[in-house]
This record gives sequence, C-alpha cells and structure tokens, in this order.
Amino acid sequence: MRRQNLALVMGALAAHGPSSRAEVAERTGLTRAAVGSLVNELAAAGLTTDLGLAPSGRVGRPGTALALSGQGPAGLGLEIAVEHLGACVIDLHGTVRTWVEIEAPNRGRKPGEVLAELSDVAAAALQHAAAQGLHPVGTVVAVPGLVDAASGTVEQAPNLGWRDVPVAASPAQWLPATLRAVPVEVDNEANLGALAELWHGSTRPPDFVHVSAQAGIGAAVVIGGRLFRGARGFAGELGHVPVQPDGPVCTCGARGCLEQYAGEETVLRAAGLAGVGGDHIKTLTDEALAGNRRVLDALDRAGRALGTALSGAVNLLDPSALVLGGAYAELGEWLLPGMRAELAARVTVRPWNSEALQPSELGRRGPLLGAGTVTIRRIIEDPARYAAWRNTREVRKSS
Amino acid sequence: MRRQNLALVMGALAAHGPSSRAEVAERTGLTRAAVGSLVNELAAAGLTTDLGLAPSGRVGRPGTALALSGQGPAGLGLEIAVEHLGACVIDLHGTVRTWVEIEAPNRGRKPGEVLAELSDVAAAALQHAAAQGLHPVGTVVAVPGLVDAASGTVEQAPNLGWRDVPVAASPAQWLPATLRAVPVEVDNEANLGALAELWHGSTRPPDFVHVSAQAGIGAAVVIGGRLFRGARGFAGELGHVPVQPDGPVCTCGARGCLEQYAGEETVLRAAGLAGVGGDHIKTLTDEALAGNRRVLDALDRAGRALGTALSGAVNLLDPSALVLGGAYAELGEWLLPGMRAELAARVTVRPWNSEALQPSELGRRGPLLGAGTVTIRRIIEDPARYAAWRNTREVRKSS
Repeated sequence: MRRQNLALVMGALAAHGPSSRAEVAERTGLTRAAVGSLVNELAAAGLTTDLGLAPSGRVGRPGTALALSGQGPAGLGLEIAVEHLGACVIDLHGTVRTWVEIEAPNRGRKPGEVLAELSDVAAAALQHAAAQGLHPVGTVVAVPGLVDAASGTVEQAPNLGWRDVPVAASPAQWLPATLRAVPVEVDNEANLGALAELWHGSTRPPDFVHVSAQAGIGAAVVIGGRLFRGARGFAGELGHVPVQPDGPVCTCGARGCLEQYAGEETVLRAAGLAGVGGDHIKTLTDEALAGNRRVLDALDRAGRALGTALSGAVNLLDPSALVLGGAYAELGEWLLPGMRAELAARVTVRPWNSEALQPSELGRRGPLLGAGTVTIRRIIEDPARYAAWRNTREVRKSS
Repeated sequence: MRRQNLALVMGALAAHGPSSRAEVAERTGLTRAAVGSLVNELAAAGLTTDLGLAPSGRVGRPGTALALSGQGPAGLGLEIAVEHLGACVIDLHGTVRTWVEIEAPNRGRKPGEVLAELSDVAAAALQHAAAQGLHPVGTVVAVPGLVDAASGTVEQAPNLGWRDVPVAASPAQWLPATLRAVPVEVDNEANLGALAELWHGSTRPPDFVHVSAQAGIGAAVVIGGRLFRGARGFAGELGHVPVQPDGPVCTCGARGCLEQYAGEETVLRAAGLAGVGGDHIKTLTDEALAGNRRVLDALDRAGRALGTALSGAVNLLDPSALVLGGAYAELGEWLLPGMRAELAARVTVRPWNSEALQPSELGRRGPLLGAGTVTIRRIIEDPARYAAWRNTREVRKSS
C-alpha cells in the first residue's frame, strides 16, 4: 500500500510539476499527514526536493513547494544506429540534460569496435551530466535489430551485420567503470522510439502503431499506453512484411519485403543518389525541396509501399493512430501523401481518417530519447523499488 | 473480496469437475468454513449442485461432492453464416446440450427474413434445452461482418450484403418471446471462433492468431488468453490485408486483398467448380481426395496467399501459434503445406516453427460454439454479477 502511495505522489509531481503538500494531498486523495511522511521517504532517496518557502501571493497555496529533483538520479540512454552513435542523460522531470551524437559508419563494423566507441560517447555524456549533479541509475541501449531482452543479447541486426552480440550481458567489458554497478538493458530502436512518442510526443494517443524508418524499417505497437512486444518480444517487424510477394530478394532472404521498396538504400538508388555520403535524409530533403523529379518519384513510391504495408497493420490491429517516426519523419512532406492514399484505398471496410497518420515531431531523436527515459518512467512508477535498490548500493559501497 | 472468492470457487469447480468442499478449500486457499458459505450462495443462485454423499472409498475425500449445475442457467449461441443458420445451448460445464443447424442461402437475403428464420432455429433449440431443464440467461449472435458491439449493430457484412443492421439493438422484434428478458449481443464470427479455440480447443495456446476462413476471411488475435479487439473493435480483418497490391478489385473496393486469392468463391472458380451447389467445402474435399489436379492447384494457391498474409501478421504481432479455423480447417491437408512454405520463406528474422501453424479441431463449429460459451465464461468469471442480475429478474417477475 505504501509502495503504491509513493508512486501516487511521484506521479502527481511528475504530471503537475512543483506543488505544495496540500496540492499533492488533494490530487492523490491522501491525507496531508500521509503525504508528509511519503515525501520524507522520497526526499531521503533523493527523488524529491524542497523548493523552499515561496513568497505566497495566492490564496490556498501556502507552505513550501515540492518538486521532483533536478539533480541526482538520472537515466542514461545509448544508441547504436547504422550511421551514428549517441548518448543522452535525462533527469527525473523527463528533461534532456545531455545529448551527444557522433557520426559513425557502423554497417559491417566489428561489434567490439562499435561498443568501444559507444563507451567513449557514454563517458563524455556522463562527465557532462556529473557536472550538473546528475548520476545515471539505469542504462538502456537502443539497437536496430532483434533483441533477447532477458539475456541482453542482440540476436540479429541485419543492417549492422550483427548476430548474437551480448551487448547488455557483459557490459563491464565495454562500459565506463562508473557505470559498472548500474543495470544495463538493450532494446529495439523502434520500441524505444514508440515509447518516446508515448512519453514525449505532442499527441500521445493510447493506441498506435509507430513506424521507425531509415536503413531498416521497424514498427512498434502501443496498446493502452503500453508497448506490445508479442509472445517472444519480436513484434513490430514491419520491414519484413511482404508488399510484393514476388518482388526482389531482401537481406532477410524473403522476397518483396517492405524494406526492399521503402528502405533508405532502395530510395537512394531509385533517386539516383546511390553511394552519396553524409546525411542521406538531408540530401533527400534538399533534392526534394529543389524539385528533383527522380527523388520525388522515389519518395512517392516508398510512401506508397509504406502505406500498403501499414494498411495490413491497420486491418489486423485497428489502431487509433499511426505515427511516422525515425529519420523518415523528416521526409513526411513527400512520404505522407502516398502513404495516406494507399491507406485510404485499402482500409475501406471500417471508418478510416487519413489524419490518423501523422509524422513524429521527435523523428530520429526518438529511440535515444526513449532509451534515456525508460529508467525515469520506472522510478516514477515504482519509487520504492528504486529506493530499495539504492539502499543496497549504499550498503555495498560503505562495506 | 467476497465477489472474488465466489469466482475462485466457480473457477475451481469448472477446472477440476466435481469436488468435495475440502478439495475446493485446498485449491482456492480459502478456509473450509468460507467455502461452505460461498457454496451456499452459489447454490441459491442455481450455479452449483450437491451430488449427494458419495460412497467414499478414497482417503481424504469424505463428504458430499459439489459440482457446477448441469441444469438451470445456460448460454444460447446463434449464428448467421453465409450458407447456414445455427443455434446451440451450452451448460455451465461448457458442454453442448443442444445443436441445431440448417442450410440457408443468406447471401443478399433481406436481414428481416434471415432473422425471422434464425428465430425459428432459436425456438427449436430453446424447446429442446427446456426439456433438459436448461434456461439460457444470455444470447450471443455470431455474424460474418464488422460489428459495433455497443449498439449491437452489424455495420458491414459484405458477404451477406448487409449494412447497418441492428441485430442486437432491437431483439424483441425477432427473437422468441421467452428470450425477451435475456441480454443479447452480437459479435464477429472470427472473434467467437478464436474464443472457442481458447476455451474448447485441444492446444489452447495463450497467444495466437486464429484464422477463420470460408466465404470471407477473418482473423482474431488472442493475447494472454484474451481477445484483442483493437481501438474500435475492428481488429483481425485479415481478409483485406493486401497480398498483391495491384491484384484484382475486391468487394471492399481495394485491390489484391487476401479474399481475392483465398476466398471460397475464388478457389471454386480456379478449381473449375464455380456455381456448384451444396456444401462447397465438402465438394472441394471430395475432389481433392480424388486427385483432381485443378482443385489441388487452386487449394495450393489459396494456401500460399494465406501464408503470405499470415507472414505479415507474424512479423507484426509475434504470436506463439497460428490456428486455421472455420470451414477451411477441413481443407488443412491441402492448404497447410503452402501456408507453411510461405511462412518459412517469409518469417526469417526470428525463429519460426512450422508446427506453430495448426488446423483447428473445431473447424466450422467454432463460431457457434464460442457464441454459446461466452455467457458461461462470464458467469464463471463473475458469478456474483450473474446472481445480482438473476435477483433483479426474479423481483421483476414477482411484482
């Protein structure tokens, strides 16, 4: 019961920002005395802070204001993408306090090398965060592939060329020493992008399919505000949904997968831009803005293929919304018309509103943002669990 | 709390069959005194019965045996299919006590006529059930179309040619008078077939996609032992998942939907059997058994199309199993090889076992069986709710 009440108080502070004890009591239905006692426990765990006696000009808002701590416990997000590496540190407010991203051509590169470079990126982020008084208490690594969460292994990441890489299983081998006592997890980038949309997006519908597209195309299904992972955690492989059963052979070995029609490599080739370096999405954007007909056609075809695959998803899952996330969100202006046209033509046996498909405002920042926020959401949903873990750690340190 | 305990006792009796009060106490973790009091309440509501003092030859099994009642409250299932109508009555044990089915060419027929004939079928089933001491306390109608459950309306049933038919909204207009005080619901046949698989099937995996195929092709997604209905109740429209984006125009207006490749009409046409009367599935089975090459090819093509559409579903949803139900389960011998081959070729980025696709043993009986069992499962899961409803009814009758 106390555990639930601690979560209620944390939740109220997360949702409403700085508040007096009386306001928290009102919002949670707890007595003021109970709130006082719960807040003492949260403060002792470093989760809340007292903002001091505010000069109260407003009736009914006396006393000191409480807030979630902007220092102390934080979430560390790390990202391994096909073309870049990233790290971010998120505080209890859900605010990004550190964001580091570097270009890195990871396709076909040895996992050990990639992880060593990611460790440097993490160390830079940690240093910056420490200067702000923030100390990550959980690390989540976003990867573009299938993950066995229990063992912390990347089972397959075809666009990296990885197979059975134990990223979170032996973090001590590659993460900075200061993170050694902090739990590490690995998750699929499409899943984390969808969670970022749920937690940071502007619309945040409770049921949606989130498409995360660039080199690979993944999706994540959010149902009732929760990520749906499937029986073995492999749900959301939109990139390998067939769109032309007799089409070209995909990296996965099957024919006519969506990635063969809408993946970045196909689009670049169709656009006459195969082999160009730099930021491919920016190149496509610039060319489309300049009216390059080949680029516009390539994007239209990719949009139509995405729409065809998504019409299958809508027919099967009946989501209330679709979100185009990942780097492709930046190409929404050219992808969305074809996607919406296919959806309108193919989802006919039920009402369907073309506005139910929207680009994400988070775009390619989604997966890293989600990775950093997982730890924060867990603390807010169950502060007692965090406090217990913290105590064990303190005991271990002092012994 | 008492409400939960009543459900615990009902659940134990449903799962283990006749038991002594001591056995129920052991299985539920309740005291024997509590079980005694709960059982009195269940018996008063007509849900359990005392089998009398059994001559106990076994140690530790003294006293009278309790059981769910085989008389009294029952579930009435009704079915409107494209080629037949059906009614069944299920007792608290989940046993089919009455099953009535008649051939009826319902395609394009006026809803009023169909409902009038269904009422006659229901009346016949009720009469037979009453002779066995069974009285339906809930009616569920299975239909091959999209349903708005809240209003009890069939929004679209393209294979019947129906649109906005208020089946459960005004049941007094068509159901027998004896059912007037009993709640009526309408649900999609694919959903009810999946629930029948969950409740009556031999394998009963907790997460599966159930395909229900004949004239139309539907699917239902079961997650964690519960039916997943989507944001607005329209999940599972497998028949309109595109398998060839530029294929022939479907009844729904889109191109290349699965139904255009695997629906009964297409298969019959490809098999050279267009326009034959009688039981189409039996005809196809007989011809396939006789080695008719055109029929075998038509079934193989249908199986491959089903496999292509299902590979999209597996990539998106990661179910632990797939079940081929409906009338097509009877064609499993010829459909399954093509389905499994396509799934094996197209689900490659994760482990996939071809044995995870199995035909349903319930086959075309599924939807009606599910419709009859919904009421029973609700009573077992919440007997207090049923008892309260029953009391209101008794009061109304006597006033």
